[in-house]
Amino acid sequence: MKPVNVGIVGLGTVGSGTFNVLTRNAEDITRRAGRAIQVTHVGARRDNPAADTSGVKVSRDVADVVADPNVDVIVELIGGTTLAKDLVLAAIASGKHVVTANKALIAEYGNEIFAAAEAKGVNVAFEAAVAGGIPIIKAIREGLSANQIQWVAGIINGTGNFILTEMKEKGRDFADVLAEAQALGYAEADPTFDVEGIDAAHKLTILASVAFGIPLQFDKAYTEGISKITAEDVSYADELGYSIKHLGMTRKTDAGIELRVHPTLIHKSRLIANVNGVMNAVMAMSDAVGPTLYYGPGAGAEPTASSVVADIVDVARTLTTDPDNRVPHLAFNPNSLSDTPILPIDQIGTAYYLRITAKDTPGVMAKVATILSDSGINIESLLQKEVDVANGQVPIIMITRQVKEQSMNVALEKIEIQEEVVGSVMRIRLEQLDG
Amino acid sequence: MKPVNVGIVGLGTVGSGTFNVLTRNAEDITRRAGRAIQVTHVGARRDNPAADTSGVKVSRDVADVVADPNVDVIVELIGGTTLAKDLVLAAIASGKHVVTANKALIAEYGNEIFAAAEAKGVNVAFEAAVAGGIPIIKAIREGLSANQIQWVAGIINGTGNFILTEMKEKGRDFADVLAEAQALGYAEADPTFDVEGIDAAHKLTILASVAFGIPLQFDKAYTEGISKITAEDVSYADELGYSIKHLGMTRKTDAGIELRVHPTLIHKSRLIANVNGVMNAVMAMSDAVGPTLYYGPGAGAEPTASSVVADIVDVARTLTTDPDNRVPHLAFNPNSLSDTPILPIDQIGTAYYLRITAKDTPGVMAKVATILSDSGINIESLLQKEVDVANGQVPIIMITRQVKEQSMNVALEKIEIQEEVVGSVMRIRLEQLDG
Repeated sequence: MKPVNVGIVGLGTVGSGTFNVLTRNAEDITRRAGRAIQVTHVGARRDNPAADTSGVKVSRDVADVVADPNVDVIVELIGGTTLAKDLVLAAIASGKHVVTANKALIAEYGNEIFAAAEAKGVNVAFEAAVAGGIPIIKAIREGLSANQIQWVAGIINGTGNFILTEMKEKGRDFADVLAEAQALGYAEADPTFDVEGIDAAHKLTILASVAFGIPLQFDKAYTEGISKITAEDVSYADELGYSIKHLGMTRKTDAGIELRVHPTLIHKSRLIANVNGVMNAVMAMSDAVGPTLYYGPGAGAEPTASSVVADIVDVARTLTTDPDNRVPHLAFNPNSLSDTPILPIDQIGTAYYLRITAKDTPGVMAKVATILSDSGINIESLLQKEVDVANGQVPIIMITRQVKEQSMNVALEKIEIQEEVVGSVMRIRLEQLDG
Repeated sequence: MKPVNVGIVGLGTVGSGTFNVLTRNAEDITRRAGRAIQVTHVGARRDNPAADTSGVKVSRDVADVVADPNVDVIVELIGGTTLAKDLVLAAIASGKHVVTANKALIAEYGNEIFAAAEAKGVNVAFEAAVAGGIPIIKAIREGLSANQIQWVAGIINGTGNFILTEMKEKGRDFADVLAEAQALGYAEADPTFDVEGIDAAHKLTILASVAFGIPLQFDKAYTEGISKITAEDVSYADELGYSIKHLGMTRKTDAGIELRVHPTLIHKSRLIANVNGVMNAVMAMSDAVGPTLYYGPGAGAEPTASSVVADIVDVARTLTTDPDNRVPHLAFNPNSLSDTPILPIDQIGTAYYLRITAKDTPGVMAKVATILSDSGINIESLLQKEVDVANGQVPIIMITRQVKEQSMNVALEKIEIQEEVVGSVMRIRLEQLDG
């Protein structure tokens, strides 16, 4: 079969990684694909010493790559949602297949992009957009195609997981570890996207759509960051048998679909609670297979390139397929996507970890217990620590049974106005993740 | 698109599970596949109360299903390598696609079966043959297609993992736990296939072929069971920081390919060392992505059915594909399989756990250390336990650095003939599994 000509747009970390993997592993990739996969055109505003593009056509105007009639597949690796969106739509309009690692672009504009692609009969492949090198889109869209998927939970931001792992292993504070992560290059100078959960919410939005066959609805995702987690919360959780992870959770219930990213207590006996450092993992619960878990590097030049190149090989295979008989972009055929609503966070039930700081006066525990009980909240376990002699305050730590967020909000408002209670109550959701 | 007609041959555990999943999840499967996937013919010598086949054509002669001109895909779930092989070859000869969960058939006769399928332009899909419901064949063949894979290691026999987990968690002996596993239905009345590693070697043989692009060579696999592992070995390993797992390991080295199943010490900090009970996990190390791991149920009616049905959906998609542009059976195109040899076990290097039982006489440790040193074997760590007062014997437990098996054999022969050494030395290989 004739070679597939690839145009790479963007020669940053992932762009150079993709170029290098395609070059270094050309022989094995050809043995697998049955045809050569060759980079014939690179679009980049400047060279990148990490990739030796000598012998390959390089354009400073990235639009030249999209306009190149010899290019079969456009690999979009410039990031962002402005120029990248225009380029992807232009590539589709010219009948080219697209491979992208751009989670923001797919999560926010995927519905429009896929509709355009389907109208033109081309693929837009995005394995690299979720969990870097883990083939999770393939696993869910194809590997689990027999199943009704019940929930998908993921540690899908390496920066956040690195910070929480360091906080736990070294007993350090959030700000301290963040500064180290920035120095190591694991966190951006502006860490908002990572630590506030926006990056994870982009990825989770995509996972929810391929798991449940719903349109992408990033604007409805609930997002809560890890910056308020303290070293003492990490330590108390550990004492109770739990790790705190920044978890993306999407679950299909009778009432609707949960779509939420927030710090989460997970029992240490669960495999996913032992995913540490910058590594990612995604766990899916499905009706036929039960629990499955997928683990690997969630970022980095070559891990991400691994997924980009796998997508290119998959696209090469579809070049001789009836477009109606390909794997649909969102796993389910576009005319059969479901309109199941996304639930607002206050309608979602979870168990909770609570840390209440109280003055050391008699009866405070009874008051708190009564308020919780009156709100229908049951206590699963309780940890009462010694009084801090310096300020006469005592932390009350507890884990509750599952309760709707709305009820918890009402109970915590009542608790916080008690005169014995100091400041606000720390609450962190808890997931069983059975399996 | 017109429905795909499926003929299921064999209505045991996996057959009834497949029938039930296709029936129960018909709507979601159709939304994904873009066409109905319907069972139109079942071949089974007797009914199975686990599957309600009323309304479906049932034949007592399974050959009738293969001969049915209305059936597009034959799902072979009778097991064994005699009738199953004939049926699969007959299905291929009549131009039908085949899906099978039969690891023995693929590992032992896959080369012949795939050659026949390629000559006829049909698929033989076998996701369910390795690690049950984990989509590991898809992950390696497609998800990692960008990579040079360096090694694949797997806990791929649930019975063995259940036994080792119980031995560790309860301090129980092998025979005791095996009897319980048999009572629970986790182990067969004749447990040889599971506990001696034959089942795992079948699966590992398949994994090696799709990872490295080599023909199936089950006869060259080295296989060692777990029946000699004692409760004290499990306990000593734990004290040294390790779990003992029955691991399948295949690795590509400059000298050749390692293909071996044996008990293995794995450090408890590795995620795969924490895979417990009947669960399976496969870890792959690859040059671009690095380490990835895939976890889930390795057996059972519906987990296995999950993989069988995913294969049927994949086959449905290839019905409109050029056969030369499909995913090759062994990941690499048949005309580009490699003849890299499989290494004999004595040419393979690993680290070792050794347990030497010695009489409590002065100088025994020095003698042992000298023999090891003279054979170029370095000791990494050492555990000297108290003397057993009843018999005056002392166990010496150590972990060595990596050494070729051949050298270890020579050293152990010398150690075992020392008059202070009682009986034979227990040795268990150790793998780092970095990542």
